[in-house]
Amino acid sequence: MPSKFVRENHTLLCDFYELTMGNGYLLSGIGDRIAYFDVFFRTIPNNGGYAIFAGLEQVIDYIENLHFDDEDIEFLRSKGVFDERFLEYLRNFKFTGDIWAMPEGTPIFPGEPLLVVRAPIIQAQFIETYVLLTLNHQSLIATKANRIVRAADGRPVAEFGSRRAQGADGAILGARAAYIGGCSSSACTIADQWYGVPATGTMAHSWVQMFDDEFTAFDVYCTLYPNNPTLLVDTYNVLQSGVPNAIKAFKKHGITKCAVRIDSGDITYLSRKTRQMLDDAGLYECKIVASNSLDEYIIRDVLAQGACIDAFGVGERLVTSKSDPVFDGVYKLAAVEDENGKIIPRIKVSENPTKITNPHFKKVHRLIENHTGKAIADLICIHDEVIDTAWPLTIFDPDYTWKRKTLTDFTAVELLKPIFKGGKCVYHRPSLEEIRKYCAEQLDMHWDEVKRFENPHRYYVDLSQKLWDLKHEMLRLNR
Amino acid sequence: MPSKFVRENHTLLCDFYELTMGNGYLLSGIGDRIAYFDVFFRTIPNNGGYAIFAGLEQVIDYIENLHFDDEDIEFLRSKGVFDERFLEYLRNFKFTGDIWAMPEGTPIFPGEPLLVVRAPIIQAQFIETYVLLTLNHQSLIATKANRIVRAADGRPVAEFGSRRAQGADGAILGARAAYIGGCSSSACTIADQWYGVPATGTMAHSWVQMFDDEFTAFDVYCTLYPNNPTLLVDTYNVLQSGVPNAIKAFKKHGITKCAVRIDSGDITYLSRKTRQMLDDAGLYECKIVASNSLDEYIIRDVLAQGACIDAFGVGERLVTSKSDPVFDGVYKLAAVEDENGKIIPRIKVSENPTKITNPHFKKVHRLIENHTGKAIADLICIHDEVIDTAWPLTIFDPDYTWKRKTLTDFTAVELLKPIFKGGKCVYHRPSLEEIRKYCAEQLDMHWDEVKRFENPHRYYVDLSQKLWDLKHEMLRLNR
Repeated sequence: MPSKFVRENHTLLCDFYELTMGNGYLLSGIGDRIAYFDVFFRTIPNNGGYAIFAGLEQVIDYIENLHFDDEDIEFLRSKGVFDERFLEYLRNFKFTGDIWAMPEGTPIFPGEPLLVVRAPIIQAQFIETYVLLTLNHQSLIATKANRIVRAADGRPVAEFGSRRAQGADGAILGARAAYIGGCSSSACTIADQWYGVPATGTMAHSWVQMFDDEFTAFDVYCTLYPNNPTLLVDTYNVLQSGVPNAIKAFKKHGITKCAVRIDSGDITYLSRKTRQMLDDAGLYECKIVASNSLDEYIIRDVLAQGACIDAFGVGERLVTSKSDPVFDGVYKLAAVEDENGKIIPRIKVSENPTKITNPHFKKVHRLIENHTGKAIADLICIHDEVIDTAWPLTIFDPDYTWKRKTLTDFTAVELLKPIFKGGKCVYHRPSLEEIRKYCAEQLDMHWDEVKRFENPHRYYVDLSQKLWDLKHEMLRLNR
Repeated sequence: MPSKFVRENHTLLCDFYELTMGNGYLLSGIGDRIAYFDVFFRTIPNNGGYAIFAGLEQVIDYIENLHFDDEDIEFLRSKGVFDERFLEYLRNFKFTGDIWAMPEGTPIFPGEPLLVVRAPIIQAQFIETYVLLTLNHQSLIATKANRIVRAADGRPVAEFGSRRAQGADGAILGARAAYIGGCSSSACTIADQWYGVPATGTMAHSWVQMFDDEFTAFDVYCTLYPNNPTLLVDTYNVLQSGVPNAIKAFKKHGITKCAVRIDSGDITYLSRKTRQMLDDAGLYECKIVASNSLDEYIIRDVLAQGACIDAFGVGERLVTSKSDPVFDGVYKLAAVEDENGKIIPRIKVSENPTKITNPHFKKVHRLIENHTGKAIADLICIHDEVIDTAWPLTIFDPDYTWKRKTLTDFTAVELLKPIFKGGKCVYHRPSLEEIRKYCAEQLDMHWDEVKRFENPHRYYVDLSQKLWDLKHEMLRLNR
């Protein structure tokens, strides 16, 4: 985001326990101990086969702007639970650690580290909430948008759900994430100004109602905006009034490049009748835009029934990911360093097997089959493991270990890139256009089977033998 | 929100069409025409019987801070569609109109005006997106929170979903709305600083993992926080390790006022076993807090099965209203004024009957039965109608008009209060505590039948005879 726009200080957008723990780490003398945290997620929204990673740019903004104002310190003092030494620590707070992350737009899968933090425990613990909030939100919306765009099968999808988003960032960063996921534009003006998401929009029903009759409303609009106007044709009656009046207005102004929008009723039936009326009037270039509580399921259905729709406007079901509005990314301790800098792995055990963590400082490889260019599996390794692609590599399912596969002709791409080193951002931030393009390219490297809406192929995320052995030894010892 | 906190300029958080229409209104010479818009909603989330109105304070903040910076004008100019006269108009933009709204915390029902705007059309049109966004979001979360609090049946509910909220305001204003709906606290620190939502929090699993063993982690914590500590007991194994270590730590420090938190596994079974272990150890005052993807349905179920839980922590299913994450408030033109100030009603027709609007400048009365103090129905009237409670009043269902009821001993409370008059805020803003209390009191005025989770009684929202006649005459003419 350009620096000229003042952003709020969101430093205190943290869970209160990050502060009580921070105070406790400091007072118990372990505040400087180096800790490793992983961000990973457990389930793909909508039982899908893949998700899209998004929100990293806002993590970077957040880390760079972290600071406690005087009034923040004053507020915390007023809570009566923090030691003055801790408040003094916060007054000089600055993130000094390292962060690795996947580039935005990367297709991601459950269980793999998406972002890794290495920092003194107070710092690493403190950033948990905001990092998760940002990544969870934008990954959710980018994923949902990509499903909807996929259903639209090449037709442009405009995001216009701001009015029903969950708060301002829900609208603004939701528009950003939707664009990464493949939407072509947004109605959200400020998302254009701040992030370069192309903003578009024409008229609401109120425009039509403000004039004495529908034709006058269309006529005035075509006078003012003769360059590719879109007229909203369902204020009174689509087929009896809206479309005839739109045709009359287009004809009067000699406009051929134009569109009509249908926002209610049976859009399959109405769009087919509308297409016929437009064609009968010689308006072959006039596009039909449909909106009204759409999502990937409805779009797929209406297209399968032969709806004549050239573009979609999608609102609340995209911007809130209505069918599954939670992305379940978590932030878990994976290791600590002892006084000599030796990394000691940590594990979190649980009655629920999916809640058990993968211990240690790790990295992730995407294994690409050379002769197809397609991704076969992701492999999570301990940080110092090296994959030698000159030799065959046998991978195996971490739960059903008899499921094995040996790769010979493959490439291993490291997915986690350095973002911060010693508190300094070392990442060249790609533009939003680059991220969007990267997302589309990376998705092309995955088989269609992974991208099905229902019952997709489960893409493999495996552990290296060394990591698997470590994890099972720790589980055996339950520590 | 205290003025000392810098907020971003959200003026351009508008749908682009509000600007293309504004430009069009100005150029076609009707920019100063007075228009009336209603905010209303169509469906109650989760098939519930009531919703809670919230978000008005942020509407007021927004209206008062509306302004276009130089860079906003520059940005709009760069889009190449706006006339210089319109850009000049925006440079001096200020809201000069009137707004009426229900107080926050009011129980609300489909179809009734929640907020009414009277302003020159460019202004009234422009504020649509932000007003809806704010009211939709907070009303959604306040409503969901109230359902969850109701299920908890007197036990405190802490909101702690920030990490999975949809953006920063999703977390911050979500916490505010949850508090209005009856939650007792939030984990979101900044929501305490900005809005006074009490922030609480103790420890995460990482605290336990940072120490060499679980007991040491608890021991250190009790040393630092001897005043009512809550220990998280499910990092390794609740019954075999967590609870015994917690008991050992409480005993060592002589702490009797304390709590344990269970965050995974079967919380019914685990809480009952835990209660027994605590009681056997004489820790009768030790509370049990449960969390882990809870909502009103799970809470009701575990309590019905005899779970021994004293308080709940509720995360993503509250802060996103996961079971129904969209509040469908809309903003529709209801009337315009002619040159002589005469109000001319407008209507929006649709194939979908629920999408047909109620025309004219209106007000809403809540009709209260005097001998029970309970609300019987809401009655929407034309702005200048007077209800004389000295006489019997017959109300009727606007769709099934043979359903009639005559009230004799009743009070009529006007729900819409003046908020802005000629661009000036004339409303005494209540504190958050006052709003929360008002919400609870107002809900007490509704019958339990309206507040059932499933198949609640449908509360009546009726039209006055005069308004009903007007609407049906306009529908007949289809204008």
